[in-house]
Order: sequence, then structure tokens, then C-alpha cells
Amino acid sequence: MSDVVSLLSQIEDTGRDTRGPGYQRPGFSNTERELRDWFLAEAARRGLDTEIDANGITWAWATPPGENAVVTGSHLDSVPGGGAFDGPLGVASALAAFDELKASGTLERAQRPLALAVFPEEEGSRFGVACLGSRLITGAIDADRALGLKDANGDTFADVATGYGLDPNRIGTDHSRLSTVGSFIELHVEQGIGLINTDQAVAIGSSIIGHGRWHFAFSGQGNHAGTTPMSHRADPVVAGSRVIGDIPVLAASHDQAVATVGRTLIHPGGTNVIASGMSFWLDIRHADDAVVKQVLEAISQRAQAHAGDTGVEVSISQESYSPTTYFTAELNDRLRTALPTAPLLPSGAGHDAGILAPHVPSAMLYVRNPTGVSHAPEEACEDEDQRTGVSALVKVLEGELGVAS
Amino acid sequence: MSDVVSLLSQIEDTGRDTRGPGYQRPGFSNTERELRDWFLAEAARRGLDTEIDANGITWAWATPPGENAVVTGSHLDSVPGGGAFDGPLGVASALAAFDELKASGTLERAQRPLALAVFPEEEGSRFGVACLGSRLITGAIDADRALGLKDANGDTFADVATGYGLDPNRIGTDHSRLSTVGSFIELHVEQGIGLINTDQAVAIGSSIIGHGRWHFAFSGQGNHAGTTPMSHRADPVVAGSRVIGDIPVLAASHDQAVATVGRTLIHPGGTNVIASGMSFWLDIRHADDAVVKQVLEAISQRAQAHAGDTGVEVSISQESYSPTTYFTAELNDRLRTALPTAPLLPSGAGHDAGILAPHVPSAMLYVRNPTGVSHAPEEACEDEDQRTGVSALVKVLEGELGVAS
Repeated sequence: MSDVVSLLSQIEDTGRDTRGPGYQRPGFSNTERELRDWFLAEAARRGLDTEIDANGITWAWATPPGENAVVTGSHLDSVPGGGAFDGPLGVASALAAFDELKASGTLERAQRPLALAVFPEEEGSRFGVACLGSRLITGAIDADRALGLKDANGDTFADVATGYGLDPNRIGTDHSRLSTVGSFIELHVEQGIGLINTDQAVAIGSSIIGHGRWHFAFSGQGNHAGTTPMSHRADPVVAGSRVIGDIPVLAASHDQAVATVGRTLIHPGGTNVIASGMSFWLDIRHADDAVVKQVLEAISQRAQAHAGDTGVEVSISQESYSPTTYFTAELNDRLRTALPTAPLLPSGAGHDAGILAPHVPSAMLYVRNPTGVSHAPEEACEDEDQRTGVSALVKVLEGELGVAS
Repeated sequence: MSDVVSLLSQIEDTGRDTRGPGYQRPGFSNTERELRDWFLAEAARRGLDTEIDANGITWAWATPPGENAVVTGSHLDSVPGGGAFDGPLGVASALAAFDELKASGTLERAQRPLALAVFPEEEGSRFGVACLGSRLITGAIDADRALGLKDANGDTFADVATGYGLDPNRIGTDHSRLSTVGSFIELHVEQGIGLINTDQAVAIGSSIIGHGRWHFAFSGQGNHAGTTPMSHRADPVVAGSRVIGDIPVLAASHDQAVATVGRTLIHPGGTNVIASGMSFWLDIRHADDAVVKQVLEAISQRAQAHAGDTGVEVSISQESYSPTTYFTAELNDRLRTALPTAPLLPSGAGHDAGILAPHVPSAMLYVRNPTGVSHAPEEACEDEDQRTGVSALVKVLEGELGVAS
């Protein structure tokens, strides 16, 4: 069988971005289906029984299915222009770990069932809801709301799911399936600088930090760019831009808080027109919900001040908020026993394991990323670290299967 | 016949923006064609001979065509979300002025031919080139370049012009037609605050001030909004926004200079993604070309500084530059004689009269706008001022036709 590095090389050309470096692997697209079919073929080649459940989650059983199963896996979709590892590393590592457990005879002695899993649309880059598969199976998103979500082409999730072979009437909470999962362990490339300059290639996830999204809308007076003196303007682009420019300083005053504007909207958006409106979306994350609130408060006050200075109005609304999610303590204790030198890392990124955690014991392993960059083509993972990640996952799975060496 | 106020009321429902206040009257659209057909019908009702020339400019002859003609008119298209007067006021005023000249018997005694004209796509909001009709007839834009321009739907000007009834092979410079124009006088709603708080409803244009457009492109490191510490970011949105926020102060230090950003572009533009690129377009105008250069230099230096502070790169390129255009001195002297109390106003906005000025004697009249707002629904013109504008235009035309009372 192949090791994790050669497994990943099998899909290195699938979904490459034709307009630049990186990948375009949208959820429920033909590209994600091609990647899923690769996983199904690799699982079949190993003699695993596979099935795609009502929510599009792919399961490959390394043993006969049963209660209290140990499950490992991740996702295969990417953000637009994303890297090669966010998602696929966890899937390839699951296959490679299976190979090691099989070769060592561990599987024959396993006291619990083992399955590999692939979750669809983890990034939420197509329908705007991250971790769509895990949200559906757990009921973290209402099925009717999900079915009505539209992609950029205006296609509903109901239509796209049907084209993907799913039955919209069966999509939604599936407690009977969830209840068979005894432990879920997701291996993922580290998405920040948490393991750079350490001698450890693998960390154990402690939590997924709190995460909110707010919409700031500035409205001013649209006017002619050539005929309106600077002193007579109420330009929402100036007000909004001043706020964006101040965000790094306001966020940095709270240790480890991050705040980002990656998307704005200007109306009407003409080169020679003073805009009448400007919006931006603000993303704030911190492990302490009170700090998120403080950063939001500081940025909101600044927005009011800049709006006042420029003669425009601002309104601020919350679009979403997820408090900090801690991974399951007992399972994490067992991971720390299996991997005594691995540091504990909180994650600023969301993951399917974080969605599952309130429902089934869940944990994460992060593998070192030497660039510290993610959601971009520069995301990286050394071959040696990939193999170390698989060894760590094998140790954890051996423990869960009751056959620790 | 109708006065200017009732003429404008005939088209007040044509091209209304269905999404909000104001108008959507794109160049060469069905709406612009509907407005043109209204003009053709009004001209025909007055017994005028009409023709649409090779470049889509509509001419209505109040006398038999001939050399050294006096021409007045404006345009009927609008910017997206524009007001009711920018364009149509000059066309309706031309019709109303014709009615007065006819009623007073002046036309019978005219020593020069008189024509009314309507120019297409003055705003450039469809194909990105303002004053497209006047640029084509004067050769200020190359016909082949113009025919290749695309609108937001990807349709070329060649295709759209064909659908509008024009022959792409005949589009372009038309010196023989231009050479018959002895004076062009365009009446237009004032687009700034130039006549507010004065006792004058009408001004004479002195110049169209210098106008340039530059593209600022910031490139940084795309990354994950949740996992990248503030200290490890190279966020082009922060750098670009800081520059936009500083522009009003930098421009205001040069008396009467205006500088505007009304359009930006963020790549990839995800809410939870630190962008890898951000662009904006900067519009600077001032009567003194040296001042435009100074403002650009100050903003460029600030862009370099903010880029350096945030660890991103910036590149700046010029997209267009038009130096200040002065209206024809002899013609303007005659306007000042006809309207001795009217102030002289420079214009920050471009006009067909400014494109024609280097080729034929051209002048402009501006009618007071009580809001000072233009390119927006709040653009306004009092009924009484509209009528005063027509009276001023009649006086100027009487002088040009050699029948001043």
C-alpha cells in the first residue's frame, strides 16, 4: 500500500486552480465528487465496505460496522485558491493509518469497530455555511434552511444535493448513525504558526475558539466625484476604510485576539462616483468570549467616531456567533497519554470535529505547517511531518481500539 | 408647445430605478432608445427634420441644414442611480428654447442654421468611456478600440451599436459633419455647489478641470482569518483602507482639489479569508495640472508608507489623464455679453462640450442645483431656475443666430 505522501500525490492535479496557484475544490462540485470517488476507490482497493449517508458523508468500514465505533477522517473540499493539505491530509492520513494497523495485525485484535469518514462542504465556500455535512447530521443547521441555501449561481442546496445523488427528503439530523460513533479523531494540517520553531510535528487540539461575524453598513451621500468639494462630502467609503485601517491596532491590544475584514461592498461602485453606501463583514475570534465582545465594542465605538467625523451613518448587526468549543476531556486525556510530548493547541479555525464534539467524543491532531499559512497556496507540510502525523494517529487509534502496544 | 418643466415631466417615469430612487438609463439601452424616441417625436411634432448620424448622435434641424450652424443640446443617459436632470435638462431646454425662438419669429430672421443635438452614452457607465458619441465623431477615441469595448454582460460596443441600428463600419471620425458646426452650446444642471447662496440661477462654463484616474494595487499574503496572529499578517485590505482613509486630508491640503475612491476590488474576497490582494481606483481633479500631480504624489507616498508598515507591496499605474480644457474664448465672450451678470464656473465634471471644444467653438451654461448633489437621486433644479435657464439659452442663441433683440 502507499504512504501518506504518495496517497496525496495521487490527487495533486485534481481541482488545480487554472487561474493561479492553489486549488478550487468547491463543496458538492464535480471536483469534490472526483476526490470522493478517489477515496471510494482507495477504500475498495483495501477491501473496506463503503457507503454515502443521507447527508453526503462518506463512510468506509475497516471492520464490520457496530456500536462505539472509532472514526477518523476529514474533508476533501477547499476554499477558493486554497492549499493542498487543508482537508485531504486528514483523509490520506486515515487511509495510511489503516494500512499500518492492518499490516501490524492490530485490526484483527481491535475491540471496537473502525471507520474512515469524509465530510462534504467543510469550508462552506459554496453555500456559505461551514461544516455543512456535520451540521446536518447533528442538527446544528435546520435541514429546511440548508436545502434553501443558494450558491453563487443561484442553485439551491436541494437541487445540487439531488444532482449529487442525495434525497432532499432524507437530509437532516441522523441520531441513530451518530450514536454508533464512540470517538471521532480528525487529523488536520496546522493552520497557523503554533508548531513553528518547536521540536514537535504534532499537536493535540484543545478547543475551537469563539468566532463571530458582524456586518457594518455605512450610508452617506452619493455624489459626483468631480464637482463635490472635499468639505461637502459624506463619503461612506472614507468612514468604512478608516475603521478597517484601525482594526489591527484595536485587535492587537487584546492578546491573541484576531479580527479581519476580507470582504467589502460599495454602492453604486463607480470609479467617478462618491458612493452612497459601503459595507464590510468583520470576523473576530478569541478563546474568551468576553474578549471577543471587548474587541467588537472597541471597533464599534471607532466606527461610530469615524462615521460622525465624516457625516455618515453606521449600523452594526451580528450575523453569527459560535462560543468557544472544547474537545471532549476524557478522549483528550487518552490522546495526551498516547502522545505525551505533543503540545495542546487551540484552533482559530472551525472543523467538523468541533461541530461533532457536543454530540460524540471528538478530538483533533494538528500537523506542523512550516509556512504558518493556510487557506492559500503557500500552505505546506513536510513529507517527514506528514509521516509523523500518521504515526501519531496510529498510536491514538491503537489506544481507542484497545490494542495499545 | 410645452415649457421645459412639462417637457421633463413627460419622461419622469422612463428608466426609473426599480431598486431604489433615481434612474437607470444606460447608454445604448432600450431605455436610452425610448428617451431618444421621445425626443424624435417632440422634434417631429415641431416640424423639425431629424437624423441619427453614424455615431448615434441625434440631430434635429430647426432650419434647413447648412454651414456655420448653431447647435444646442445635451444627453439623455444617466449614471446608475442618477438624478432626473443630468442630461435631460439640456435636451428639454433646447426644445423649449426652440419653441420661444419660433414663437417670437426669431427663427425666420436667423442668419445661421440652428440644430438641436442629443449625444449618446455621455456618462460612460455602460462601456467605461465617457462622452462616447462626441469622442467618436471627433476622433478622441479610435473607432476600432471603441468597437471592442465590452459592457458588464460581455457584449461588445460593435454588437450593441448594430442592435441600435448603427453600422460598425461607419462609426468613427466625421470631420465633414463637425465642420458644419459653428457653435455648440450645452446647457446642463450644475453638479456642485457653485450657484448655491448666489442670486444667479445660471453660470457660464469657463473650463473642464483636469482629470486623471489611477489604479493602486496592493498585494500581501492571503491567509486564514482565524489562525493567523495579527502580528504575522501582511493584509493588503488594511494597507489600502488606510490610504483611502487618508485621502480627504491629503487632498484638502490643496485648495479645490478633489480626490475620490468609489470602487475597490478584494481578492479572493471571502469573509473568513485574509485577502491576498486589494485594488482601488483613484480619481483626482483640479484646474491646475501641477496640483493634480502634487495630490497624486502625496497619496502615492502615503500608499508606499502604509504598504511598508503592513508588509505588503503596492504598484500604481495611470489609467487615464485629461488636462484642463478651456471653452472657446470668442464664444464665451459673446455669452458674457448676452448674460452680463452670470458668473464663470469651472466644472469638475466632463461634458460632450468639453470633448468638442478643441474642434468646434463650444460653450456651456449651468443651471443652479439647490442640493449641490449630482450623480445621485438628490440632484435637483427648481422649476423657476429651469425656466431662467431656458431664457438664458434663448438669449445666447439669439446672439449666435444674429438676431439679438
